[in-house]
Order: sequence, then C-alpha cells, then structure tokens
Amino acid sequence: MTDRVYKKVELVGTSPAGIEQAIQNAIATAGETLHHLDWFEVSEIRGHIAEGKVAHYQVVMKVGFRLER
Amino acid sequence: MTDRVYKKVELVGTSPAGIEQAIQNAIATAGETLHHLDWFEVSEIRGHIAEGKVAHYQVVMKVGFRLER
Amino acid sequence: MTDRVYKKVELVGTSPAGIEQAIQNAIATAGETLHHLDWFEVSEIRGHIAEGKVAHYQVVMKVGFRLER
Amino acid sequence: MTDRVYKKVELVGTSPAGIEQAIQNAIATAGETLHHLDWFEVSEIRGHIAEGKVAHYQVVMKVGFRLER
Amino acid sequence: MTDRVYKKVELVGTSPAGIEQAIQNAIATAGETLHHLDWFEVSEIRGHIAEGKVAHYQVVMKVGFRLER
Amino acid sequence: MTDRVYKKVELVGTSPAGIEQAIQNAIATAGETLHHLDWFEVSEIRGHIAEGKVAHYQVVMKVGFRLER
Amino acid sequence: MTDRVYKKVELVGTSPAGIEQAIQNAIATAGETLHHLDWFEVSEIRGHIAEGKVAHYQVVMKVGFRLER
Amino acid sequence: MTDRVYKKVELVGTSPAGIEQAIQNAIATAGETLHHLDWFEVSEIRGHIAEGKVAHYQVVMKVGFRLER
Amino acid sequence: MTDRVYKKVELVGTSPAGIEQAIQNAIATAGETLHHLDWFEVSEIRGHIAEGKVAHYQVVMKVGFRLER
Amino acid sequence: MTDRVYKKVELVGTSPAGIEQAIQNAIATAGETLHHLDWFEVSEIRGHIAEGKVAHYQVVMKVGFRLER
Amino acid sequence: MTDRVYKKVELVGTSPAGIEQAIQNAIATAGETLHHLDWFEVSEIRGHIAEGKVAHYQVVMKVGFRLER
Amino acid sequence: MTDRVYKKVELVGTSPAGIEQAIQNAIATAGETLHHLDWFEVSEIRGHIAEGKVAHYQVVMKVGFRLER
Repeated sequence: MTDRVYKKVELVGTSPAGIEQAIQNAIATAGETLHHLDWFEVSEIRGHIAEGKVAHYQVVMKVGFRLER
Repeated sequence: MTDRVYKKVELVGTSPAGIEQAIQNAIATAGETLHHLDWFEVSEIRGHIAEGKVAHYQVVMKVGFRLER
Repeated sequence: MTDRVYKKVELVGTSPAGIEQAIQNAIATAGETLHHLDWFEVSEIRGHIAEGKVAHYQVVMKVGFRLER
Repeated sequence: MTDRVYKKVELVGTSPAGIEQAIQNAIATAGETLHHLDWFEVSEIRGHIAEGKVAHYQVVMKVGFRLER
Repeated sequence: MTDRVYKKVELVGTSPAGIEQAIQNAIATAGETLHHLDWFEVSEIRGHIAEGKVAHYQVVMKVGFRLER
Repeated sequence: MTDRVYKKVELVGTSPAGIEQAIQNAIATAGETLHHLDWFEVSEIRGHIAEGKVAHYQVVMKVGFRLER
Repeated sequence: MTDRVYKKVELVGTSPAGIEQAIQNAIATAGETLHHLDWFEVSEIRGHIAEGKVAHYQVVMKVGFRLER
Repeated sequence: MTDRVYKKVELVGTSPAGIEQAIQNAIATAGETLHHLDWFEVSEIRGHIAEGKVAHYQVVMKVGFRLER
Repeated sequence: MTDRVYKKVELVGTSPAGIEQAIQNAIATAGETLHHLDWFEVSEIRGHIAEGKVAHYQVVMKVGFRLER
Repeated sequence: MTDRVYKKVELVGTSPAGIEQAIQNAIATAGETLHHLDWFEVSEIRGHIAEGKVAHYQVVMKVGFRLER
Repeated sequence: MTDRVYKKVELVGTSPAGIEQAIQNAIATAGETLHHLDWFEVSEIRGHIAEGKVAHYQVVMKVGFRLER
Repeated sequence: MTDRVYKKVELVGTSPAGIEQAIQNAIATAGETLHHLDWFEVSEIRGHIAEGKVAHYQVVMKVGFRLER
C-alpha cells in the first residue's frame, strides 16, 4: 500500500522584521531536522511590545511533512 | 425599498512575494468579473514549502461586494 | 501579594501600507494613554477595497498591558 | 441518480427596521436570480451606528437552494 | 450540601412571526414539563424559505433550569 | 500619520421588549461617555426566564468607535 | 503576473448510501458547470431520519477550483 | 398556537464496522424511547485503537426530534 | 448487536469552594438519577462575584453515560 | 428607561498557587477601580514553566459589571 | 507517582478508498514508530479531486498514546 | 540569525488529585525528555467517573519549548 501519510508539527517562529520573516524562520528551523516539508498553516499571529513598538512578531503555525514509510 | 444587500465570495489568493501580495492578487482577479467590491476578510493564511522555503503564500479570504438591485 | 494582573483592550489598527504597519499604528495609539504595553494578539485581518485595490488594511487585535496595583 | 445537491451563498442583508427585515431583504434579493431557495442560516448580526442610534442592522447569512441537475 | 446544580436542554423554537416569538415558543413548551426555568442561550438562528419569503424562523437555543436535589 | 485607529468595548444590553431594544439600550449607554461610535457586533443572545416567559433579553455585543489621536 | 487564484463554493451533497457517496454527488454536480475542480473540505455531516433509520446523509462541503485569468 | 418545537439530545454511537454504522446504532437506540426522530448532526468522529487498528469508531452526534405539545 | 451507545447531558455545577468541588457537585447530582456515569467534559468555567470576591464557581460540563439497551 | 447595561473587561490574573487564586487576584485588582462587579468568565488557562514546574498560572478571563446610568 | 500521561500527534491519512481507510492508514503508519496507541480524533475531512471525482480522501486526525515513564 | 523558534507538543496529564496536579504531571513528564520548557496552554479539561465520583482529571494541554538551533 502506497498511500501517503503526513505529520503536522506546531511551531512558533519569531522575528523583529515581520510576519513573513517569522514564518520563514520557523520553516528554516524545521528543515534542519525534518525532510519532505510540504505546507504550513498559520494559526495565530501575536508579538511582544517594547518601548511602544513591536519588538518581535510571533507566528504560531503548523508545518506538514510527508512521512517515509 | 433601497436597503443595500451584499454578497461574499470566498477566494484563495497566492503569491511567492508575501501575504499582502496574495491578497491583492485575489482582489484583482475578483475585480475582473465583479463590480462594487467593498471589503475583504482573511480567514486563513497558509502556504506551500519547497526546498526549505516558502514557495508561495495562500491567503483564504472572503470578498464582499454590493449587489445591484 | 505581588502577583501581576494584566488587562487586554481590543483595537483596530488601519493602514494602506500593510498588515505590520496597521499593527504598529494601533500600538502607537495605545501607547499614548496606556503604560506597560506588553504583548498583542491579532484576531482578524480585513480591509476596505477601492478601485479594485486594497484601500487600507484593518487589523483587529488585542493589546495586553500590566496593571499597576 | 436523483440525489439532491444544494448550494449555499453568503449574503449580507441590511435594514434600519430590525433584524428580521434585514433577513427578508437578503432573501428577496437572492430570489431575484436564484430558484428553489430553501433555507437560511444567520452567521453574524452587526450594524452601523449614527448619532447614537442603530442606523441599520447588517445580518450576515447563508442562503441554501437546490441545484437543478 | 446545598450548592445548586443546573441542567441545560437544547431546543429549537419555530415561528413565522419572528425570532423573539420562536424563543417564547420554545420556552413555553419547555415549561410544560420542566420546573425552575432560569435562563436561555441562543446558539443558532436559521429558518425555512417558501415562495421567496421566510416561512418560519428556527431558533436553536439552550434552556437552563435548576435541578431539585 | 493620519491612519485611523478604533477601539472595541464589550457591553451587555438588556430589555424585556426584544433583541433590537436591548441593542439600542447598550448603544445609548455607550454614547453617554464615548464619542464617534461607529459599529456594533452581536456576539451572544441570551436572557432570563421568569414565570415561564422571557423576563428580559441580554445581548452581548461589541461596540466600535474611532479614537481621537 | 501568473499567480494562481482559486474560488471556493459551498455545496451540500446528499445520498442514502453513505458519506462518501454524498461527497461524490456534490462533486459530480459541481463538475457539470465548473472547471479545474481541485479539492474539497467537509464542514458538516448531518442527515435526515425516517422510520428510525438514516434516510439520507447530508454533507456540507466546500469545493475549491482554479480561476482562469 | 401550532408552531413546532424540537429537542436535540447528544449521543455517542459506536461500531467497529465504520462511521455510518456507528451513526445508525445511535439512531436505533434513540428510537427505542423517542418518537418523531427527524435529523442528526455529527459533531465529532473519534475512536479507540487496539493492536494497531481501529477497535471501534465513536461518533458524537445530536439527534433532533419534534416534541408533542 | 451489542455496540455501546452513550448519552451526554449538560450540567452546571456550582460551589464556593473551587472548580473541582463544582465538578463533583454536578456529578453527584447526576448520579442520583443516572446510571453508568462514565466521563465528563468541562465546557465553561464562570462564576458570580459578591463583595469583591468569588461568591461561587459555575462549571458548565457535559456528563457521558452508557445507555442500557 | 431603567434597563440595566453591563460592561465586560478582559483581565489576566496570575498566581503561583493555582487557578482559583489567579482568578481571585484578577477580581481583587478589578475591584480597586470598578464597582458593581457581577460575574466572570474564564476564556483561557495557561502558565509559565520554570525549572520543570509551573512557575505561575495565568487565567485569561472577562469580568462583567453593571454600568451606572 | 504513577498517574498516566499521554501525548497526541497530528497526522493526515490519505486513501482513494474512503474515510475509514484513510484513518486506518494513518494509524498503521503511527504504529510503526509509536507504542501504546490508544485513541484518535478526526479534526478535518478533505480531499483532492481529479477528473471530476475524489482522487483521494485526506483525514486530518490526532492520535493519542500513553507515554512510558 | 538568532531569532528564537519554539515548538509546541500536545500532552494529556491525569491525576485523581485535581486539575493543577494533572498539569504538573504532564509538565514533569515532558521535562524528562525536553529542554527549555517555557509555557503551557490548557485546551480541554475532562475526566473519568467511577462510583459516582471523579476518578481522575484529564487535562489536555500544549507545552511550548525553545528549539536549540
């Protein structure tokens, strides 16, 4: 049987630069240990504030990847 | 009776450039066939990953427009 | 007893420039009257459309800050 | 095969007179172009305020109708 | 021990006359067999359409009442 | 910078007369201390029951208003 | 610019035979008028009961398809 | 007044055979004590695993029926 | 056929002593009239305030039990 | 017109001692500046971890109070 | 202390044959590397369409298993 | 680049003693194999009932920790 099975892990990427950069950071980190990364889904956008400005964005997201069988 | 009625359609805009560009792409496409576009609401932000990077962002969104009566 | 208590207020930041700028605008406004701003949580991303383009982004968000006791 | 299939469209009815009138307005407009309207489901009740009063109610709703096959 | 315990039942009231009347109908029916009715919570507003108009409103709601112990 | 920022407050209007009147009561009270009221969003409809009838409706809602900067 | 844009429509497939058949029925009907059908998402599974058995399953689902530009 | 009122009860049907059979089991059991069963709504699909396989499916669902008045 | 079927009822336990005691109160009351109580699921934690303190906790919860067939 | 209107504010109480104490802390702080506190609703339970233990619980909650008119 | 602790992982099983087969595929794959699999919870049912038919079902689900301590 | 990335895992802690103890049990178990545990978020409170009492509480929660890069 060759039906594919995927797994999702939940990560929080952070960046002072913006939402897209926080997403990229989480994917880059996931890619260091996981293969076959396929898609991501953002579930929350939040961040910390310091001195009246966004200090860094925090993007909670799920990353899906294919499991080798 | 002249009370306004609106319709919402659900679109998925995509772009490798970022979330805002994916939103703009969906609105531009909607505008080719629909008039009186008025507002949008993002319901999901997702994307595909290729070679350890975001290949393109996918923004699921609703676009509201006034119906002519 | 010195356990911290926080309050969250709900704001809508707007900007024609993008999502991050709309977030920054809401935080800047909140900072004019509130102290100890600590974090934000985005709950909705929406916007108005004019002439087939995004006229401005509207980011509904909560801003959390520590209460002085 | 004669199993029925239905479609749902999402509309926003508005009225200064009240929630039920806003619902009726959306249904009346839908009925101008769609046949076999069967049911509706309210998903949001909102409205605009002017001079300290409700200027008009906005009822976001889905309208379901049977597709001819 | 005299701490109160409540039960909630889920009902669907219907009426051609409007939302409030559908709510009243459900409560009146509940009151025929249940005592100590205390509060209600609307969870859905829907309805059937016939001949391009609302044929009747359907209000899905929970009704809470105190249990005798 | 002249981008608008809005605030939302959460109120519960009550009335024995019906849902629309409960909404109006909350808006009237909000208008006594807040300026630039702009829109409302209903989040819950509930109520108390007495003697087998609705004693009063309770409408939980958010009221949005523009902040002066 | 060649970024893809997709649209989602909401359908209700029905069948006495089971959930998968109800899904297939909705997709078959959608395919009669829409091209480039790409994916579906089930949002609700419900059904009617007659004589103490499931008379037919109703699957509320969204069907996504690529828009030609 | 002859407006219909319905009640919903929440059941969990189980079966090793599949999702549809679990639904049928819950409806059959409900029908032993309740009359006028009219519709069902699935709210959760879960199950137990034993020896690396689905031991039985559990379908959490609401069953609606008309109240006699 | 011996597949088990369960029913869930929704209760609100209250107690001035705390959340666990409110849960225990609801279960004890349910056990006076229902057999085979099996599990509970908390859906809301709320409470009343008097003189600046929690007067009692209110835990909204579902209690599941096996139906005898 | 004497129909009551309530306001809800969102607070985060914290305590190393437990969930109930975190709730009490938030209410005590709210009571320093607000009158007629009436009820609370917990919306999230979270906390910080230090040295492999809960360092403090964080209870996100809404506190409702009657507005004087 | 011997209180049990469980972990949940999120998987996506796929199959052209149907929803139950997609669930079984995910569980079979999980069982290759995890012990003490105990239950599953379906969170989404979706799928891909090709040539006007369901090409494969995708069932997003959580699988729970007991951790050895 | 030194932006932090976090991962969340989903656990179910159990205890007959109460909700806080169930949370502590899950964190203690997580700490045996994971470093840099930082926060937790409760997503469900449930439990098993035996002999008319809570046999054990089950707290479904996510535990967040910083990934070393």
